[in-house]
Amino acid sequence: MGLKYQEHFTIPFDMVDVKQELKLPPFISYCLGVSGRQSESIGRSDLFVFDEYGLIWVVTDYELRINRLPRYNETITIETEAVAYNKFFCYRKFFIYDQDGELLFDLLCYFVLIDFETRKVSPVPDDLIAPYQSEKVKKLQRAPKYNDLIDADSKEFTVRYFDIDMNGHVNNSKYLEWMYEALDYDFLLGHKPKKMQLRYVKEVSPGGTIFSRFVKDGLVSQHEIDYQGQIHAQAVIEWEKR
Amino acid sequence: MGLKYQEHFTIPFDMVDVKQELKLPPFISYCLGVSGRQSESIGRSDLFVFDEYGLIWVVTDYELRINRLPRYNETITIETEAVAYNKFFCYRKFFIYDQDGELLFDLLCYFVLIDFETRKVSPVPDDLIAPYQSEKVKKLQRAPKYNDLIDADSKEFTVRYFDIDMNGHVNNSKYLEWMYEALDYDFLLGHKPKKMQLRYVKEVSPGGTIFSRFVKDGLVSQHEIDYQGQIHAQAVIEWEKR
Repeated sequence: MGLKYQEHFTIPFDMVDVKQELKLPPFISYCLGVSGRQSESIGRSDLFVFDEYGLIWVVTDYELRINRLPRYNETITIETEAVAYNKFFCYRKFFIYDQDGELLFDLLCYFVLIDFETRKVSPVPDDLIAPYQSEKVKKLQRAPKYNDLIDADSKEFTVRYFDIDMNGHVNNSKYLEWMYEALDYDFLLGHKPKKMQLRYVKEVSPGGTIFSRFVKDGLVSQHEIDYQGQIHAQAVIEWEKR
Repeated sequence: MGLKYQEHFTIPFDMVDVKQELKLPPFISYCLGVSGRQSESIGRSDLFVFDEYGLIWVVTDYELRINRLPRYNETITIETEAVAYNKFFCYRKFFIYDQDGELLFDLLCYFVLIDFETRKVSPVPDDLIAPYQSEKVKKLQRAPKYNDLIDADSKEFTVRYFDIDMNGHVNNSKYLEWMYEALDYDFLLGHKPKKMQLRYVKEVSPGGTIFSRFVKDGLVSQHEIDYQGQIHAQAVIEWEKR
């Protein structure tokens, strides 16, 4: 088990949807901020990792299991730990609790370290990871697989100025937003996500148009973000009726 | 002078643009959260105002004067006070300071109280406003005027699911986003706002399409959000070269 880190957070007005329930795309970004503060607190800020190792953290996959989404003004506890790592991958978990200590949802993230110069995945340096007290393992559970989409519906989105983050690419949270937005307004009103897997394949650059493709079969939707003829992100979402 | 209230805030990753500078649209929403916490702290939460008076606060106008926009990870101080009010209008100011106490920018908001049942503007009840220690005045400075746009350029935006807030309408911050997004990517990269005035005229409902119209004359851009043939928001932004 890794070193645990906790923060409390009260869900603000602009992080809930019309149903008064948490918007997952900005909240996942917020969680990355929480893990960033853990890293800072143990001397492993992004800046330190970049300066000392020439490496940057990149999220490749997410898995979420959702019991309940918190509501406007609800105070939650975000607990995170870097659970385990092998040669190339690091697992981080987030547990989101309500004020009674009930688990609202959990979030598993797969991280890799990218060499800033070569843009290639780097082996995880043991001394970089040491302060997290993560377990070093030979094998890690593989990230979920994705099927090709057949007969997909598609919605077009223009990449906007505010979609681009300070790394010069579309911010990861936008992919999940585009996946949601491809679905019907009324479907989103009447359903909530129960389980989600999400993979980031490639970055999207400023300018141009992406296609948010999806296949919805009952309460499961499969998603793909296509840009210039290539898959840039994939997801599977299991929904339930509200 | 009104009762002052302060909070510190460290600018998170997802609140900066590609230039590593603060995104104003979500930050203005954040400021409203700060004033909400001041109101709570003096027993005037939105819920209390609604339950006791049947009233809701609505922002009609903003004015900003910007010296410098804070950058990623910079810790700022947000100071706010409800400065003055007359029969129908309340003024609130926000002062944003850097860590050396230098003023980064200020933000003046014009608020009115709307009767939830009749949807009409209500006179400001003295006992509601008393804890803010605002000055009651006969006349308040009028909000800035706006010109009709002639030969405007226009960009179309579809109203998205995540644009809708828990009041069931497009969130105010989206209007300013649509105004920015109507401008050139390269113009936004090369310029920063110096002065801004912004007026909310009408709410936009879910579904449908808005037109973000603008006229840019040198370093001044005038904006309008049109929906179903009517003006829903207006702005004038003065820019300067970076």
